[in-house]
Amino acid sequence: MFLTVMTVAEGLAALAPARRSAVAVVAPTLGAVPAEDVLASEPIPAWARSTVDGYAVRAADTYAASETLPALLELSGAVAMGQAPEGKVSAGAAMAIPTGGLLPDGADAVVMVEHTSEPMPGHVELMRRVAPGDGVLQPGEEARPGDVLAPAGRPLRAAELGLLAAAGVTEIAAHEPPRVAIVSTGDEIVPPATASLAPGQVRDACAPALAGLVREAGGEPVLRGIVADDAGELERVLAAAVASDDVVVVSAGSSVGARDLTATVVARLGDIVCHGLAIKPGKPTLLADCGGVPLIGLPGNPRSALVVFRVVGIPLVRAVAGITAPPAAATARARLERDVPSAAGRLDVVQATVRDGVATPQFGSSALLGPMVRADGCLFVPEAATGLHAGTEVDVQLYG
Amino acid sequence: MFLTVMTVAEGLAALAPARRSAVAVVAPTLGAVPAEDVLASEPIPAWARSTVDGYAVRAADTYAASETLPALLELSGAVAMGQAPEGKVSAGAAMAIPTGGLLPDGADAVVMVEHTSEPMPGHVELMRRVAPGDGVLQPGEEARPGDVLAPAGRPLRAAELGLLAAAGVTEIAAHEPPRVAIVSTGDEIVPPATASLAPGQVRDACAPALAGLVREAGGEPVLRGIVADDAGELERVLAAAVASDDVVVVSAGSSVGARDLTATVVARLGDIVCHGLAIKPGKPTLLADCGGVPLIGLPGNPRSALVVFRVVGIPLVRAVAGITAPPAAATARARLERDVPSAAGRLDVVQATVRDGVATPQFGSSALLGPMVRADGCLFVPEAATGLHAGTEVDVQLYG
Repeated sequence: MFLTVMTVAEGLAALAPARRSAVAVVAPTLGAVPAEDVLASEPIPAWARSTVDGYAVRAADTYAASETLPALLELSGAVAMGQAPEGKVSAGAAMAIPTGGLLPDGADAVVMVEHTSEPMPGHVELMRRVAPGDGVLQPGEEARPGDVLAPAGRPLRAAELGLLAAAGVTEIAAHEPPRVAIVSTGDEIVPPATASLAPGQVRDACAPALAGLVREAGGEPVLRGIVADDAGELERVLAAAVASDDVVVVSAGSSVGARDLTATVVARLGDIVCHGLAIKPGKPTLLADCGGVPLIGLPGNPRSALVVFRVVGIPLVRAVAGITAPPAAATARARLERDVPSAAGRLDVVQATVRDGVATPQFGSSALLGPMVRADGCLFVPEAATGLHAGTEVDVQLYG
Repeated sequence: MFLTVMTVAEGLAALAPARRSAVAVVAPTLGAVPAEDVLASEPIPAWARSTVDGYAVRAADTYAASETLPALLELSGAVAMGQAPEGKVSAGAAMAIPTGGLLPDGADAVVMVEHTSEPMPGHVELMRRVAPGDGVLQPGEEARPGDVLAPAGRPLRAAELGLLAAAGVTEIAAHEPPRVAIVSTGDEIVPPATASLAPGQVRDACAPALAGLVREAGGEPVLRGIVADDAGELERVLAAAVASDDVVVVSAGSSVGARDLTATVVARLGDIVCHGLAIKPGKPTLLADCGGVPLIGLPGNPRSALVVFRVVGIPLVRAVAGITAPPAAATARARLERDVPSAAGRLDVVQATVRDGVATPQFGSSALLGPMVRADGCLFVPEAATGLHAGTEVDVQLYG
């Protein structure tokens, strides 16, 4: 039945789309993917600033200062926050300065207030010596013009949002979230809002769940509805998706007949590069290149579909989104509570709970979502293994 | 200067707000937080369904079937997807059925098509015996009325979205994302969009970065702008935030004077429960209860502010959001490349890169965001430790 069964890695390599989602100029937001390195155009900070509350001085005036023999300097004013200092610091003088204040001309260091006293009006005593640069953030110390503020391909995190704001960068060229078409097929499938099911009908569980995973991957789900098992109608819907979306996902029905129908239609729209994956659950997965738009035909069982989309679809959506440094998955190291059988050459994805360092597999018909709802995550029995023994240390990839 | 310095755990315990964000009826979406357990009102599936492509039979008719002596049954039609079967399965008869098809009356099992043949029109040969229930998903096997489809307090994941859709649940009572007010203070602070800085001015890096972390926590950032170091103005802005938002975050300025001003104003609006945290960076953190609305006064340095918000603010926002089962953080186990000094009684948060299982601390003035931008995550030197030796195995909490 399957012309080509590939490993997950082979399938991803065979598909590897060259196209990326469109680039637009947007405000920097969490998760936005810079299409190119974002560079500083000016030094940050623009001026030397104090990093402590204290007194701006010439370091040379403090070389002899100590607890027992403080240096006495003349107090020549105070630096106000957010303003240029009035006057400068001459030899033998000091100026009060708050943390973040602009270092006045003449000064090259700041003595922390904790190491000073004001014994009489107009003077300050320093109990510590400082070296030039002490207590001072130099211009360009955070970034110099041309420095990379945020690298291309790494979704923006909080720290980059802060640095871009500090640099005055309020617009960046970023990949748009890929539009991921989601198509459900099957004569039995009806919308989730259907209040009362006629005999044989099933509500569409795949599309809403896949939409969640698409968002997790940084994509924009485009729900293209439910299509009956009709080749003409399916071709029309899929062709429209291929024409306007960046990735197309179709839940290909659970019966052999429905899968064959999907494969026939997809073959008209592009090249099928993979007719099946060596993965359980999820073997009847179809991967196709429709003129540069990747298409994934998922198994009809919602749980199988979600397993495959997590393993194949999320990396694909991220690639199309221009993400070259994806965020790491949360994992928990745990000991397997029981044996997990598998077969060599096949990746097994097993739902599991994790409690107190013990991973308990959640088995059950692949027609059930329940084991995945109960699970904290999933573990993988790699292709090379014929199973995992109870007590094996495994990494459970955590959901949510 | 600090009346009370608490550990992070003590600070969180002292604040522990009782109020939760408002509950609204919404469509289930990724990350939505059910305010109560979402229960099934009908059995899923509603009818017995086939889990395989094959033939619906009475199991009793197959007891003698084997490869060498197949059972020959009369073929009495086929089940169409999404429709009630026409007729029933009588003794000695079978009906073709696709995966997902409604099990016809009379049948109690399905034989997989792989174990059958149709040797002559109108008949089917079975080469395997089946037991009652084989190849069948029973009504209510996924969920029975009253079963929990999605537990209260756990943000919805893809699997729950699928199960809720299958159950026809298109509305749930969920906590709204908490409104988190973000207030920046300081005479030197100007909006990020300021093209050209006057001497001494600094663009607001805190607010955009904190907004990112608020979204990470599942909150809705409410940017309440930049307030000069003026007690009356700050009180007006903070009072408005306390009146309409669920959590208030104020970057309290970096100088002692600015911090004192913030503390004075906050004391007018509520009870300060913590005047400092035993954390580095981030000691000058203020926690207050403003009539049930938690307020966090953050240090003025953007990096310190982000460190504290990650450790204190995110758990707080999640608590207010009604999240009792927060998603796990992504971590990487790695060996420390060098010694990290600390002091007993204080939590040190150290930025670090992780490459090939080695964690390399990123040091630098806490006035710089750069070490956090370069880092893959952060590691923690716990209160009880006076430092960590090179080679120690640490868990780096990963960003992004």
